[in-house]
Amino acid sequence: MHLMKLYIIQSLLLLLAMHANSQPIVSPSNYVLVIHGGAGTMDKKTITPEQEAAYIAVLKNALLVGYHALKAGGTSLDAVEKSVKILEDSPLFNAGKGSVFTHDGRIEMDAAIMSGSGKAGAVACVEGIKNPIQAARSVMENSPHVLLCGKGAEQFAKEQGLPFEDSSYFATEFRYNQLQRAIEADKIELDHQGTIDTTGQVIDEKNQKYGTVGAVALDLEGNLAAATSTGGLTNKKYGRIGDSPLIGAGTWADNKTCAISCTGQGESFIRAVAAYDVAMRLKYTGGSLQTAVCETLEQVIKPNGGRGGMIGVTPSGEVAMHFTTKGMYRGVIRMDGIPEVSIYR
Amino acid sequence: MHLMKLYIIQSLLLLLAMHANSQPIVSPSNYVLVIHGGAGTMDKKTITPEQEAAYIAVLKNALLVGYHALKAGGTSLDAVEKSVKILEDSPLFNAGKGSVFTHDGRIEMDAAIMSGSGKAGAVACVEGIKNPIQAARSVMENSPHVLLCGKGAEQFAKEQGLPFEDSSYFATEFRYNQLQRAIEADKIELDHQGTIDTTGQVIDEKNQKYGTVGAVALDLEGNLAAATSTGGLTNKKYGRIGDSPLIGAGTWADNKTCAISCTGQGESFIRAVAAYDVAMRLKYTGGSLQTAVCETLEQVIKPNGGRGGMIGVTPSGEVAMHFTTKGMYRGVIRMDGIPEVSIYR
Repeated sequence: MHLMKLYIIQSLLLLLAMHANSQPIVSPSNYVLVIHGGAGTMDKKTITPEQEAAYIAVLKNALLVGYHALKAGGTSLDAVEKSVKILEDSPLFNAGKGSVFTHDGRIEMDAAIMSGSGKAGAVACVEGIKNPIQAARSVMENSPHVLLCGKGAEQFAKEQGLPFEDSSYFATEFRYNQLQRAIEADKIELDHQGTIDTTGQVIDEKNQKYGTVGAVALDLEGNLAAATSTGGLTNKKYGRIGDSPLIGAGTWADNKTCAISCTGQGESFIRAVAAYDVAMRLKYTGGSLQTAVCETLEQVIKPNGGRGGMIGVTPSGEVAMHFTTKGMYRGVIRMDGIPEVSIYR
Repeated sequence: MHLMKLYIIQSLLLLLAMHANSQPIVSPSNYVLVIHGGAGTMDKKTITPEQEAAYIAVLKNALLVGYHALKAGGTSLDAVEKSVKILEDSPLFNAGKGSVFTHDGRIEMDAAIMSGSGKAGAVACVEGIKNPIQAARSVMENSPHVLLCGKGAEQFAKEQGLPFEDSSYFATEFRYNQLQRAIEADKIELDHQGTIDTTGQVIDEKNQKYGTVGAVALDLEGNLAAATSTGGLTNKKYGRIGDSPLIGAGTWADNKTCAISCTGQGESFIRAVAAYDVAMRLKYTGGSLQTAVCETLEQVIKPNGGRGGMIGVTPSGEVAMHFTTKGMYRGVIRMDGIPEVSIYR
């Protein structure tokens, strides 16, 4: 009889443990936002204090805007969209205003957004849409589709009443000079080169950066979300689409594992299904997010010649910001409302 | 000392077992090809023996063409490309010739190909390319990119010297009538309706099919490959891209786990990262391919309202053909060279 009681207690404990394992226990009052502005070979020696301050100011602003949304009980979807919009509106990053030029002098942008509940929306190869991340959100909310591209996606965004800008809004002299260099060298720039000041002027061409932007967040309801936006490659041709707008490659969110946004050599991230690869490591190995992100970047993408970075957050609020480049524009803000921003390793 | 010997032997056995687990032992003389021509509500009662024979003839031809490539020591990549080309060239399937119409009466096609070594290529939203699967192969072999879309992808295919056809080649009266019905009903057809004869004439409108085509193969060298091609949705708008050209969603190959090609409601497959989800079940649970494919289709995609089918093959030659619809055009051919073709459950 005594043995039977012990057996029942043990069985109940086992069931509890299994439940805890499959459904991470979420603190009902925990929220956090993580952002990135691209990874690359940023070098403290070649960036002036003024340039550094300019980047840090925009990153802090993006964190605070998302933080206030989360603090007020807003959704993680709203937080990541608002944060990415700030980064798109800044000429310092390769997304929205300040995007790189294609071979024929146009600006073609990609963006994706996903909620931890499994909804997703994305646009690829779009021109003129002021904030591609808003278009991605509209695809998610107001269409039966996940991914729209080119003129069709632009028509959808127009019908949704989203703001458009002409090419002079997006174009910066720095990006134009980048294109001329790339055309002269007859190469596709898999990254953008150089450091720019707040007006988009080229200061130093030695640095290399993968200038995608992204955000991941956990809200008070325990819901995750991820968003990524990019101008892609300088001198790109042929309607190339990178990893950013592809669900599972550059962007992923799922309330049982994690939310992820990537930056780096897009093709390597597509072939590795990078963001979903991290989620599957969490699902099946039960390890930490930091370990999972490191493994995907260091053991899958790096051996195939790919470099870049990832940010992520789990349902319990664990944060990861890892990169295989010299630096990554990145930041995190938690419930205390203090934005923590870093550039170098 | 005796104990020490036992310990060393045990350690060596353990190492062997671990090695066997991470690197599946491949028979050097095993090859197999699996194909699909879309899943749907095919009903034996509403398909005439003549229609059935027409589908079976094309499926058998696609299997035999791929089989001869494999038997001659060709790569799995060649086999899946050749098989899918046969299906694209037939007006019976929604890929290449016989693709469905977009809302504005155009034919926009998607295709992807991937080798088990990790190379991948895809095109999305392309018009006029006779065989989109060849364009996908060219992107993989002759560009630094994975995914090209729209006019840019068409320009790339032209520069590669691939054959183009004008719209009259792709158009069939059956598909045109489908579009008119969809426009009248003001709905996007997530599948194509009706049974057609070999000339593309509408015979019966009661049946519903997801008319993507695909192939997966294992070659004599132990290399896997996957290929998928589709015309997408009837009456689609806004440059919609489905799961077929997205690596990890509708198409996946990796020599350590499996090669997969999907057909069904594309958006559900994108949100589930369906093909890669199957591969991760194999990697982490060590179960059979059949179990993994069933779990992804029945436990992930079905509860979210998605239906469709998948074909797959593992490095050891295990084959899976599973669907959550009434039927799926499908077939397999092994070393004996006898094509096995099925339509219904």
